[in-house]
Amino acid sequence: MATTVASHDPQVKYIGKPGEVSFARGLEGVIVAESTKSYVDGNAGRLIYHGIPIEVLAERSTFEETAFLLLYDKLPTEDELEIYQMRLRQYREIPDEVYQFISCAGRRYNFHAMAVLRTAISMLATFDDLAEEDTMVAYEREAIKLISRMATVVAAIGRARKGLPPVHPRPDLSHAANFLYMLFGEELDPLLARVMDVILILHADHECNASTFTVRAITSTLSDLYSAVVGGIAALKGPLHGGANEEVMRMLYEIGDVEHAEAWVRRALARKRKIPGFGHRVYKTYDPRAHILRRYALQLTQRAGKEKWLKIAEVIERVMIEHLGQRGIQPNVDFYSGIVMDSMGIESSLFTPIFAMGRIAGWVAHALEQRRDNRIYRPRFFYVGPEHLEYVPIEERG
Amino acid sequence: MATTVASHDPQVKYIGKPGEVSFARGLEGVIVAESTKSYVDGNAGRLIYHGIPIEVLAERSTFEETAFLLLYDKLPTEDELEIYQMRLRQYREIPDEVYQFISCAGRRYNFHAMAVLRTAISMLATFDDLAEEDTMVAYEREAIKLISRMATVVAAIGRARKGLPPVHPRPDLSHAANFLYMLFGEELDPLLARVMDVILILHADHECNASTFTVRAITSTLSDLYSAVVGGIAALKGPLHGGANEEVMRMLYEIGDVEHAEAWVRRALARKRKIPGFGHRVYKTYDPRAHILRRYALQLTQRAGKEKWLKIAEVIERVMIEHLGQRGIQPNVDFYSGIVMDSMGIESSLFTPIFAMGRIAGWVAHALEQRRDNRIYRPRFFYVGPEHLEYVPIEERG
Repeated sequence: MATTVASHDPQVKYIGKPGEVSFARGLEGVIVAESTKSYVDGNAGRLIYHGIPIEVLAERSTFEETAFLLLYDKLPTEDELEIYQMRLRQYREIPDEVYQFISCAGRRYNFHAMAVLRTAISMLATFDDLAEEDTMVAYEREAIKLISRMATVVAAIGRARKGLPPVHPRPDLSHAANFLYMLFGEELDPLLARVMDVILILHADHECNASTFTVRAITSTLSDLYSAVVGGIAALKGPLHGGANEEVMRMLYEIGDVEHAEAWVRRALARKRKIPGFGHRVYKTYDPRAHILRRYALQLTQRAGKEKWLKIAEVIERVMIEHLGQRGIQPNVDFYSGIVMDSMGIESSLFTPIFAMGRIAGWVAHALEQRRDNRIYRPRFFYVGPEHLEYVPIEERG
Repeated sequence: MATTVASHDPQVKYIGKPGEVSFARGLEGVIVAESTKSYVDGNAGRLIYHGIPIEVLAERSTFEETAFLLLYDKLPTEDELEIYQMRLRQYREIPDEVYQFISCAGRRYNFHAMAVLRTAISMLATFDDLAEEDTMVAYEREAIKLISRMATVVAAIGRARKGLPPVHPRPDLSHAANFLYMLFGEELDPLLARVMDVILILHADHECNASTFTVRAITSTLSDLYSAVVGGIAALKGPLHGGANEEVMRMLYEIGDVEHAEAWVRRALARKRKIPGFGHRVYKTYDPRAHILRRYALQLTQRAGKEKWLKIAEVIERVMIEHLGQRGIQPNVDFYSGIVMDSMGIESSLFTPIFAMGRIAGWVAHALEQRRDNRIYRPRFFYVGPEHLEYVPIEERG
């Protein structure tokens, strides 16, 4: 919670004008803006996007429709959905130079998928004659463009990691099916396209997370949408934000066998080692997204003959809930998303980029919301350095 | 100032756990972290970097030394400065592929210098085998690398805008002299190198501005330093943050002649048009950086035979202070920096990139400070959307 710092405190100085200033380290307990996008009831384990529970969207909606809901605060009519989906499809292709950059990056030693994603999205702006157009109409068009192209870039990165040339998008497939087509070079079972669709829906928005906050902070300077999204990718890259799903798979590989799982977790708990995929600042109960993904994990690991990972995961979950469940430490979305994607044949370095492919819907929706009622984000620091330091000539410095 | 929102307010919902939450739109009046880097006394018109007044640094220090002061919270000894400058010089060169991207971008219709800067710096990470190394030693090395290479990238962008090939860095020159050498392809008068040095010093840090805040927010997820700096560039690009110096020159060109200046300003004031380069949220008196740049503007416009712009500026300043000076609206750093750079032969599209070349010192210093005592930035939004929205089948939507 925010605490108020007295203005006569002799230890510290105010930055900016004097008066009452709240000190909220890490901005905890501070509301920065209003939003109509998503809301978590952490005690009930309920997540809604503009009033619709995530379970309903996962069951009945598509990623395209969910992104529309976040952008426009309403479900589309048939006509609206058709026009909007046509726009999404027409923007799929990206310039050859961006494919080339991604392919070349794939041949280099240091190839962090998120660094390549950040660069490729930034580069797209330099090929987009309309990127700097500063109207709400232009801004909305760039939003749809970015949702669409993120999939093309992520698929090309996945191909480059395997030394394969990119596969160009197809306009006749859904967003998720086209992504899998571009990634694998062939049309996959519709079940897998549906699962990818659900993964994107589940990751589309989540209140004021660090990347969405960064997107809004950049937008608040009236910078362009590409800049905002590039900042979102930069923040999502951090291991405290995205990336936990990758760590879950690494843990499962490390455990290796279901017989070792229980002992491994108990040892990890005894050593106070952090178990990835558990606990969340907001949820005090089971993350509703984990529930949904758990069902798909069951179906897909069986289908892929990879039941082992799910069995290990179930042991981890049982031991963890036994020990920490009452303290609100429960599986979160990252715990099952990695297993689901792994059983689809997607390698773990793509997990965070795919997270970004879903979250882009929330990022651009929040950027538009910020633009419509903008106030530049201007917090302060607490200056705790010296008030006077003498500039001693260099030859006299000790 | 932050206001407290009552938890029983029926109009709105808390995001996150219930309890007392502060609503600070735009985070105004909220301190997010401690800092030892810089401090502004807005009433006295005093800016210090770690205790040393900006006037002293502009007079006696160099950009290299000032960046050291911000990074390490001390002035370097002779040995320290030598080693550190050697490191800065050794990192100057960038990969051919990044030069190529910049040159190609220069041939394209849509070429926003800040979009190219953002992409080029992001791309550098994909060539840097050590960009992902997560230790404080590695982090500090990347900081020095980024300070150094920002100049190479900005100079190459300047060349590309004129359709000229890049000029490779020289290791024997100071940071500022080498930048001008790379930009103009020849070694310039030492006076100009000194003025560039001062410009970089004056822009090196400035409390919790929007780009520095973005850098720290991204860093708080434990993302890498390139990601943080790319986010800083993205925020600086916004017209509410960087870019005002460009607008000042545009205004001077629009006025065109000193005889029209007074009438122009009075008309603009009457129409409540915003005059760029005036006013600042913190300074209630003359921005000390503007004082310093004003002197150089006098010297350099005479030298370049461009006295006209300064004369117009002086009229604007007189009329503005006459009308708004008592309300604390005074010239800020942007008002004279554009005139100084213009008289050095630098085109206005490079003004914000050069701002970034100075501010990178503060960005990396703040990123290191954030890393040393990290807490993820986690503010909240105020959810004002519907609590329940029915998922009506698409054929029934009106």
